[in-house]
Amino acid sequence: MKKVEGVFAPIATPFGADGAIDFGRYAENLAKFDKTGLSGIVALGSNGEFAMLSHQEKLDLVAAVRKGLGPDKAVIAGTGCESLRETIELTKSAADRGADAALVINPCYYKRDLTESTIEKFFAAVADASPIPVMIYNMPGNSGINLSSALVTKLSAHKNIVGVKDSGGNIVQISEIIAGVPSDFSVFAGSGSYLFATAALGGRGGTLAVANVAPDICAEIYSLCLKKEYDEARKLQLDILQLNACVTSRHGIAGMKAAMDLAGFFGGAPRLPLQPATEAMIADIRTQMEKLGLLGKYK
Amino acid sequence: MKKVEGVFAPIATPFGADGAIDFGRYAENLAKFDKTGLSGIVALGSNGEFAMLSHQEKLDLVAAVRKGLGPDKAVIAGTGCESLRETIELTKSAADRGADAALVINPCYYKRDLTESTIEKFFAAVADASPIPVMIYNMPGNSGINLSSALVTKLSAHKNIVGVKDSGGNIVQISEIIAGVPSDFSVFAGSGSYLFATAALGGRGGTLAVANVAPDICAEIYSLCLKKEYDEARKLQLDILQLNACVTSRHGIAGMKAAMDLAGFFGGAPRLPLQPATEAMIADIRTQMEKLGLLGKYK
Amino acid sequence: MKKVEGVFAPIATPFGADGAIDFGRYAENLAKFDKTGLSGIVALGSNGEFAMLSHQEKLDLVAAVRKGLGPDKAVIAGTGCESLRETIELTKSAADRGADAALVINPCYYKRDLTESTIEKFFAAVADASPIPVMIYNMPGNSGINLSSALVTKLSAHKNIVGVKDSGGNIVQISEIIAGVPSDFSVFAGSGSYLFATAALGGRGGTLAVANVAPDICAEIYSLCLKKEYDEARKLQLDILQLNACVTSRHGIAGMKAAMDLAGFFGGAPRLPLQPATEAMIADIRTQMEKLGLLGKYK
Amino acid sequence: MKKVEGVFAPIATPFGADGAIDFGRYAENLAKFDKTGLSGIVALGSNGEFAMLSHQEKLDLVAAVRKGLGPDKAVIAGTGCESLRETIELTKSAADRGADAALVINPCYYKRDLTESTIEKFFAAVADASPIPVMIYNMPGNSGINLSSALVTKLSAHKNIVGVKDSGGNIVQISEIIAGVPSDFSVFAGSGSYLFATAALGGRGGTLAVANVAPDICAEIYSLCLKKEYDEARKLQLDILQLNACVTSRHGIAGMKAAMDLAGFFGGAPRLPLQPATEAMIADIRTQMEKLGLLGKYK
Repeated sequence: MKKVEGVFAPIATPFGADGAIDFGRYAENLAKFDKTGLSGIVALGSNGEFAMLSHQEKLDLVAAVRKGLGPDKAVIAGTGCESLRETIELTKSAADRGADAALVINPCYYKRDLTESTIEKFFAAVADASPIPVMIYNMPGNSGINLSSALVTKLSAHKNIVGVKDSGGNIVQISEIIAGVPSDFSVFAGSGSYLFATAALGGRGGTLAVANVAPDICAEIYSLCLKKEYDEARKLQLDILQLNACVTSRHGIAGMKAAMDLAGFFGGAPRLPLQPATEAMIADIRTQMEKLGLLGKYK
Repeated sequence: MKKVEGVFAPIATPFGADGAIDFGRYAENLAKFDKTGLSGIVALGSNGEFAMLSHQEKLDLVAAVRKGLGPDKAVIAGTGCESLRETIELTKSAADRGADAALVINPCYYKRDLTESTIEKFFAAVADASPIPVMIYNMPGNSGINLSSALVTKLSAHKNIVGVKDSGGNIVQISEIIAGVPSDFSVFAGSGSYLFATAALGGRGGTLAVANVAPDICAEIYSLCLKKEYDEARKLQLDILQLNACVTSRHGIAGMKAAMDLAGFFGGAPRLPLQPATEAMIADIRTQMEKLGLLGKYK
Repeated sequence: MKKVEGVFAPIATPFGADGAIDFGRYAENLAKFDKTGLSGIVALGSNGEFAMLSHQEKLDLVAAVRKGLGPDKAVIAGTGCESLRETIELTKSAADRGADAALVINPCYYKRDLTESTIEKFFAAVADASPIPVMIYNMPGNSGINLSSALVTKLSAHKNIVGVKDSGGNIVQISEIIAGVPSDFSVFAGSGSYLFATAALGGRGGTLAVANVAPDICAEIYSLCLKKEYDEARKLQLDILQLNACVTSRHGIAGMKAAMDLAGFFGGAPRLPLQPATEAMIADIRTQMEKLGLLGKYK
Repeated sequence: MKKVEGVFAPIATPFGADGAIDFGRYAENLAKFDKTGLSGIVALGSNGEFAMLSHQEKLDLVAAVRKGLGPDKAVIAGTGCESLRETIELTKSAADRGADAALVINPCYYKRDLTESTIEKFFAAVADASPIPVMIYNMPGNSGINLSSALVTKLSAHKNIVGVKDSGGNIVQISEIIAGVPSDFSVFAGSGSYLFATAALGGRGGTLAVANVAPDICAEIYSLCLKKEYDEARKLQLDILQLNACVTSRHGIAGMKAAMDLAGFFGGAPRLPLQPATEAMIADIRTQMEKLGLLGKYK
């Protein structure tokens, strides 16, 4: 497969006024991302509203991403479901539609029953069955479950598990993972707010909401770290903190989509019940976009 | 509709060795439940592993419950999904298959974006569209979101929202809801461990994992409260606390299904990745079942 | 000792403009409480701002409470400290000044190190050394540590540990404790919002912030439960929920003290850095006080 | 004052068999620390068991630290208490005994009442009254309250507030603070597990439990970052992660003290109710100490 390294955007899913996916807008966004410094695209990520999509919609989106990107860009598909059987089926179907790797979130609804040992078995079974490499997706903010460094380290020994995207933001956990996994295992930052710290510690990139809005700045932070130009990388990292907050903790998916609109991509509204960004949110986002010269940059 | 009152079992979903639903076993369990003191059955509840089921499986299970119960028993279907559109579609389909009411859990994956105001809009939109009465399902332990007494009180004014199942176990919240809602709004305990307290405060029943195992004891607790025989009801309540813990917090869904096997129903294993109960768990459960005279009681 | 049963007020500590304790006001409040239906007073409780007081101030307050109450009212002193040695010393000193029992909160600063086994040793050592009976004080909202029903049940076997005040509000935990402890072990509600539920389950009373404001209503709820007049008790319980919230979760200690002022006791401002109640808070409290006929009732 | 920069050890407080402070051992430890690469010592930190100490013991410890260190080492005293009055008094007394700066934790018992605005007023009042510079101490793991980057940034404008020790470990929060405060405001890592990340982002040092055990390695990590030798610094950081966990999250204060014994300092047992390290804990710690060549290094 293409090496899982560098910065990826967890691409947003655009909806039309009737609530259906707008594949035309999706293709336009993809054509723009294809020209950026990103290493690839994650389809069906949290920011792609995967939890809002039907099985068929998911398959169509993966196919569209593969079709919309050049061969030098990797395609990662989010394929984790609550049941093992559905996760395996979706992973295989995504591979059939051109995904280079699967980003698999752990099941999370039955929190009490999903012990670390049960989750370990889940990932091993998915990786055994998957025709493409598997990346672990730790997203405690949404799932309510954290995958420990001990668990990730243990799973890193599986030959078909090639990395982890850690969206927990616990830099100690990320450090422990880096210290414990094989050197070809990719540790990704799950948010643009700790991309620099992760890369400085030896991480291999990130999948970042803010990369939907500022793809080239994000790619540059990682690239500078690779070149050991840490002072420059740190400066960019500190510069994007407020925008990053706008498109994640502060204004959520609606905020990220509104920021995409401001940048020149198509964002639009999230699927109901999620609500579109308010005027006040958009004003806050615009201020941060302007500071970074991002208004209309990708029109 | 049939009045939403009394004790309901959130019926387990039995699986065969191949992981498919075993509808034969399901029908057998239903025939047994039909003869108990329960007021009805909840299909597609958390304990029915709804999060593990495909859309089609969900529809087939609702139809099977309706078919398997006599006309005096009510059927409630769990129909909450992450997106509004899928929730409405599933609610309508469940109504078509004979559900008397819908038990709707709030969307929960995008915790940060799902403000109380957004969740309020969600429930109002579902209730507007639903051909059957809607019951709010608050399950913070699994969903990671608590629906406040203020929110539930506000939603209780909607003419098609008829009750709440509160699985949070916060007796103050339950008290505040009872104090704030119309007198014909049903407040249900979501676990057998606070059925007595809820009923003593004026609640109308419960949907209880332990009712899958000890349906008649649970129905009796509520019935005694209705008759103001509080001393007897309290005694039964204290007696079932340990068994209740076995089939919920202590051993989870696997424990509940193992207890069903011991009682004479068919429980079997949960769907993967959930693991079956261990021998040690079963021994713990058996001890509690024996104390209550439940071993083989429903064979 | 006097039986630890009934409703107690965790009396507020009044401060003068210079921040020193106003013992005159304290005595006036005590004289008023002495005429209510309360079973006694808790000095140095959380609501008495014990964490803000010096060692000497604590001793003087216990002496003042004993002096200010008639012999039919019991005096309980809050004596838990972070170190075992200071806890034992304070407990002995409180006994010397007339405390009938000690209410001991667990140490809580070193959360990670304070395992259940360590906390068990702490309570056993305090009870061994104490000349007066010890009541366990579980206050997870402030301490960040919950004392489980298993721990309390185990400690209830100690002959000098006579009860628990559970301020966690988890009615299942309270039920499990009642089901597990000897019949002469007193289980107290730690807040007025679940006094009825606790009493209906077999609890022996409560120590309630709202008893500083509405002592007779609180005493009446418990008294009605003893007489098995549950319908009346439930009604009073539902009636005081909003006032209870005002003096606890909604407006805190400042709110409780403002409510005392409105009732005719002296409340005043909390010790800095805690801030006095705002006008908006006072207006909210006044509305609830008025509904219950409490404005000026204890002038 | 001496510049608040570099790595500090939050020195342990040694106790004798009778539970009293062993000032002789304390002086011996200080003499050893004086010869390390540390910038100074924090007396009365969490690891110094400040919560277990009487007021008089605290004063004596500050005096002993000042006496035991050479003039090139800075002395920081932990002086935060629940009440403002006691915090100010202790801060002044610590200054009288030679403390160069005060490390002030926020009050935390009355979590509900301690709003961000109240905590802001607290720090401003302490800084106004303090004769020595004040450093904010954020310790959410013990206090249960997190001081946000917005709050710290606001307080950084006060001329007598010179830095923050952030023990929350949230690297995004630390980044936001660094991006928002004046350039002479010192942002310290509160644990050895993110010293490198903090320094790489522009932080000025740390106060670290592991510096009680491996002072020179910790000082070296910071020193390498200052020299922009990031690859070497990162390697040391990853190397000490396991030892750091042993003396913090894994085995607590007892583990840290046991590790001090193994390194050649005097650690001993914590004050009761905290329990000494078990043999199993000590074995785990020894393994990590040995890997780093620390056994007996400071004998």
